[in-house]
Amino acid sequence: MSTTASTRTPLSPTPRSTVTRLKDRARTDRADLDAVLDAGLICHLGVVLGGSPVVLPTVYGRDGDTIYLHGSTGAGNMRAACTGDISLAVTHVDGLVYARSAMHFSMNYRSAVVRGRPVEITDPDQRLHALQVIVEHAAPGSWDRVRPPSKKELAATIVLALDLTEASVKIRNGGPGDDPSDIATGGVWAGVLPLQQTWGTPIPSPDLDPGIETPTTVLDRTTAAPAMV
Amino acid sequence: MSTTASTRTPLSPTPRSTVTRLKDRARTDRADLDAVLDAGLICHLGVVLGGSPVVLPTVYGRDGDTIYLHGSTGAGNMRAACTGDISLAVTHVDGLVYARSAMHFSMNYRSAVVRGRPVEITDPDQRLHALQVIVEHAAPGSWDRVRPPSKKELAATIVLALDLTEASVKIRNGGPGDDPSDIATGGVWAGVLPLQQTWGTPIPSPDLDPGIETPTTVLDRTTAAPAMV
Repeated sequence: MSTTASTRTPLSPTPRSTVTRLKDRARTDRADLDAVLDAGLICHLGVVLGGSPVVLPTVYGRDGDTIYLHGSTGAGNMRAACTGDISLAVTHVDGLVYARSAMHFSMNYRSAVVRGRPVEITDPDQRLHALQVIVEHAAPGSWDRVRPPSKKELAATIVLALDLTEASVKIRNGGPGDDPSDIATGGVWAGVLPLQQTWGTPIPSPDLDPGIETPTTVLDRTTAAPAMV
Repeated sequence: MSTTASTRTPLSPTPRSTVTRLKDRARTDRADLDAVLDAGLICHLGVVLGGSPVVLPTVYGRDGDTIYLHGSTGAGNMRAACTGDISLAVTHVDGLVYARSAMHFSMNYRSAVVRGRPVEITDPDQRLHALQVIVEHAAPGSWDRVRPPSKKELAATIVLALDLTEASVKIRNGGPGDDPSDIATGGVWAGVLPLQQTWGTPIPSPDLDPGIETPTTVLDRTTAAPAMV
């Protein structure tokens, strides 16, 4: 989604979204936040249910400084998200960092964490826009190709908008951060084992009509390397 | 981690860990739970901080029916986890499901969700065991190869144990679940775009002593295909 970075608020404007641990990994540029969010397929959504937290994976989409979420009207976590604060995180693991000591093992990652009070979207046009953003986030080029949501489907769906005001980004890359004494002692292998996500070959649905070709927007993902970065 | 499935409690013994949405995707075999947890590198941990949820990525390890977590004594979410309920989720996305209608787009995934009240581990031997489980989960074969935690490192670390009593697993695989009318209408491509995680070539630390070979336990991961499944 296109955004104009120069006119946007820097990250961490509130105390509770300011990164307090391992600050050298924090970024304050909204472009970093956008990139991490846009590269993800799912987020992990946290709500408070009956006084206790519950974390569930779910899809999402970003449009400027807004995250859209959707879910069934029958889902307890979505109903909780209509009336309370939520948090969501999107994390990419890019590699495993092998260190010379147990406590310095780490991962290379890109992680975005958002907190806030979502707003339930009730305007029909805005709901359709939000669902389009979510579908296009996961499967670019698909919305205009497929049947739009029916009235019945829409009636069973909660759509939420979460503002990206309270958001933080952490990015770690590079090799192990071993203690100088462990490096001096030597003798232990240390390094990074990179991890990548790649799309495989599309598998057409078995009940697909003959002659329907795989869309370019699907095929293009399999040739972009590496996916998700 | 080895476990004896026959003597273990089935999943979903409590109302709040019983899957209520899309029940056909739920599994009740603890072996499914173990497999999803063991295949993950990170979980997303949710706690309640100041009355609001916060979700952060973190590493973990499983030993039988116990999940171990660790973090800095300076981390707000770890301190919250010492005195309150938590939830954690481990999710693998195995593919994107392209449907013939917008609301039937989906993902193939394996997801474990756990809720409960963790216990802070204070016994020194148990703490070391838990840290070993966490390191061996992320980097098998590493604990005995590297320097163990120092007293100073241990003093700065909170170690938590979470029982896997309230846990649920969902697994989706296969093609799109389109409406019969959309299938009959035809003309729209539908199918699955598989997604895989693969380890790359190990990158030795630039300050590594010459002659130190990459351990077999690291090299073995790069030849196991596909990783994380």
